[in-house]
Amino acid sequence: MLPQNPPVEDLTSTAMEHKIAEQPALANGKTNGHTNGNGNANGTSTLPGLDASKMTITRADPTLRAVPDEDTACAGNETICTDHMITVTWKLGSGWSAPELKPYGPLSLMPTASVLHYATECFEGLKAYRGHDGALRLFRPDLNAKRMLMSTLRISLPGFAPAEVEKLILALMAVDGPKWLPASRPGSYLYLRPAVIGTNPQLGVQAPKEALLFITASFMPRMDAPPGGMKLHTNPEDMIRAWVGGFGYAKVGANYGPSLLATNEARDRGFGQILWLYGPEGYCTEAGASNFFVVWRTKEGALQLVTAPLDDKLILDGVTRRSVVELAKERLAGELEVVERKYTIDEVVEADKEGRLVESFAAGTAFFICPVSHIRHRDYDVQIPMVKGESGHYTAKIKGWMTDIMYGNEQHPWGVVVDEQK
Amino acid sequence: MLPQNPPVEDLTSTAMEHKIAEQPALANGKTNGHTNGNGNANGTSTLPGLDASKMTITRADPTLRAVPDEDTACAGNETICTDHMITVTWKLGSGWSAPELKPYGPLSLMPTASVLHYATECFEGLKAYRGHDGALRLFRPDLNAKRMLMSTLRISLPGFAPAEVEKLILALMAVDGPKWLPASRPGSYLYLRPAVIGTNPQLGVQAPKEALLFITASFMPRMDAPPGGMKLHTNPEDMIRAWVGGFGYAKVGANYGPSLLATNEARDRGFGQILWLYGPEGYCTEAGASNFFVVWRTKEGALQLVTAPLDDKLILDGVTRRSVVELAKERLAGELEVVERKYTIDEVVEADKEGRLVESFAAGTAFFICPVSHIRHRDYDVQIPMVKGESGHYTAKIKGWMTDIMYGNEQHPWGVVVDEQK
Repeated sequence: MLPQNPPVEDLTSTAMEHKIAEQPALANGKTNGHTNGNGNANGTSTLPGLDASKMTITRADPTLRAVPDEDTACAGNETICTDHMITVTWKLGSGWSAPELKPYGPLSLMPTASVLHYATECFEGLKAYRGHDGALRLFRPDLNAKRMLMSTLRISLPGFAPAEVEKLILALMAVDGPKWLPASRPGSYLYLRPAVIGTNPQLGVQAPKEALLFITASFMPRMDAPPGGMKLHTNPEDMIRAWVGGFGYAKVGANYGPSLLATNEARDRGFGQILWLYGPEGYCTEAGASNFFVVWRTKEGALQLVTAPLDDKLILDGVTRRSVVELAKERLAGELEVVERKYTIDEVVEADKEGRLVESFAAGTAFFICPVSHIRHRDYDVQIPMVKGESGHYTAKIKGWMTDIMYGNEQHPWGVVVDEQK
Repeated sequence: MLPQNPPVEDLTSTAMEHKIAEQPALANGKTNGHTNGNGNANGTSTLPGLDASKMTITRADPTLRAVPDEDTACAGNETICTDHMITVTWKLGSGWSAPELKPYGPLSLMPTASVLHYATECFEGLKAYRGHDGALRLFRPDLNAKRMLMSTLRISLPGFAPAEVEKLILALMAVDGPKWLPASRPGSYLYLRPAVIGTNPQLGVQAPKEALLFITASFMPRMDAPPGGMKLHTNPEDMIRAWVGGFGYAKVGANYGPSLLATNEARDRGFGQILWLYGPEGYCTEAGASNFFVVWRTKEGALQLVTAPLDDKLILDGVTRRSVVELAKERLAGELEVVERKYTIDEVVEADKEGRLVESFAAGTAFFICPVSHIRHRDYDVQIPMVKGESGHYTAKIKGWMTDIMYGNEQHPWGVVVDEQK
């Protein structure tokens, strides 16, 4: 029998509400006997939830691998990871297993595994920073953990208490931080990549019945200061990145693979990334896989820092984006107005033509705060002023504040210190 | 230096044109010293192309695994594959390696593998049919191979000559067909799943520098005759499957994972699949992961078989869809008009209200030709007539013709006979 007269609300919103409601203890991450280990079922469950306190440790022989210098580590075609990784398995009928911290190595997946066919995958990216004061810090890892829960649920993978993921990230850095990001390298970072994938070996378009959460730590090249600034090419008219009613706000694999073709074509033309416009109006959304900011003067003369809003769910709620917005509101009040609103490429072009365009930058974990120097839109080239050829004034200022928090020059609640095992 | 005055054409179309142009011998699949093993670079290449004639064979012990009956094989949560699979690796600098036919088993992927993070993956689905005449047939495998090339290039994976993939599929069935789809089981099928994934162990949003093509053969449950017919729920307003400028026409993982949330919510309400509508007009596009057809009478009284068109690249160019269109045009001429055009859910509802709706079915490899009995759109329920409670008249007729070709009751060029190793 079919249900009669169901509510007419949106299925996806409804599903997300169900799933978020059934997550245990989102605020404090404490798991207990009533936590839900099954993010794919409706209602509550007594299956084991993700629980960092159950983590087992199998140590790698620390003498087996030497730590390369940063340049060497980033020179090849393979990401160099640290000695260990964390894995946690989940099954529909039994919930989350005990997390394992163990030697870094390959995963074994059946050729029928869900993730290999249906893109049942999501990830996060954050960095661990070796401070000038010797401490090892993460930058707002709670935001990454919460966003990963949202992405995980959006792609029909199992839910968890975000605080448990945060604890696992800290645990991996506590073990691998001292060797791989030694105190002798202040101002350096490692890149952390938590991910969840659907692993059940069953073909057919369906929500995964088995999943794997894993966390790696690795070297990643510095991309925040390309010579001459980042050069953007607006997206081709036959290719848009995300759409209202889609999943542009979630950090799921499905947002990335399909963008590569246009990005590579732009690179062949000498540009670094695509500036993704949306709709016939040409709203500015993201720069590559980063958030996008401009500083301009309005026609009335007001100085504004402008970026796309989150409310239509087209763009990622970036941790760097959010931090830029919050810092600028706090520290540039009276000097510069921070505006989150829809704005079009035509507005940017007009500001450029009228000499009102002041600065532009991309913001994200991988590219950090990266000055944008050039935007090609159809046959028009926007050339953006760079102070001393490398950055705009406000771009540099904000980047400096963020850097100080990350590397401990400024003690700030956003910098979460890792309790390292020494 | 940036290129000056570049053409203003679309980057994605341009990229696809480049890539398709550089594929060797699309027509005959013959590889030679000048084939291009590198679908990600511009221009031609002398790297080895995909070459089925180089295939090596490592046989599994055929006594190790017994062949289950169909019901048992499909009862569990794991897809049961045959004794062997085919794998072929590709690297940016060295092209395609020699294909390997070898025992079915797990793949080893580094946690940093591209496919696990960026959805650099695409696949195909087709079946092998054990005929009532004893022969083993594939159904139009050339169409699957060509579509896989298109999907592969769209997701920035390496290209190949489609005929070589077709040969590999035939080779796998030649070895595993006699045991796993024996002549004692006429009217049965196995499901073939070719896929290509990005395997390079390097984080960062970029086109894969290493890839793996693999082909498995497995049992898959029959889904073409759910009791009472397939029940569809139109998509929620906050969730659309594909969009113009997207990749709905390509069989890439990114089309599937994001659809699961709404599909599961619909299932919780008693419906089998989502009828995906597009745009404010509510154009009918796909039913779940299948193409969607209706038979109706126009207001003027003409009988029409209607399905969405391919030209806006929203929907998959289904092999079953194409075959239905071609057979109906050939064999129902004068009786029924075949129309590929945009049509809206409002037109379907209006036809239902006016008693002009005759039949509806979903068409695809997994669901074959599956009668649709019910469509819920907001607060309206479309009830579709079923002859004898199981199917419409034309639905049954077309399904019968297709079945006859697949299982050799009718000798037809679409049925490609496998030269089995007995």
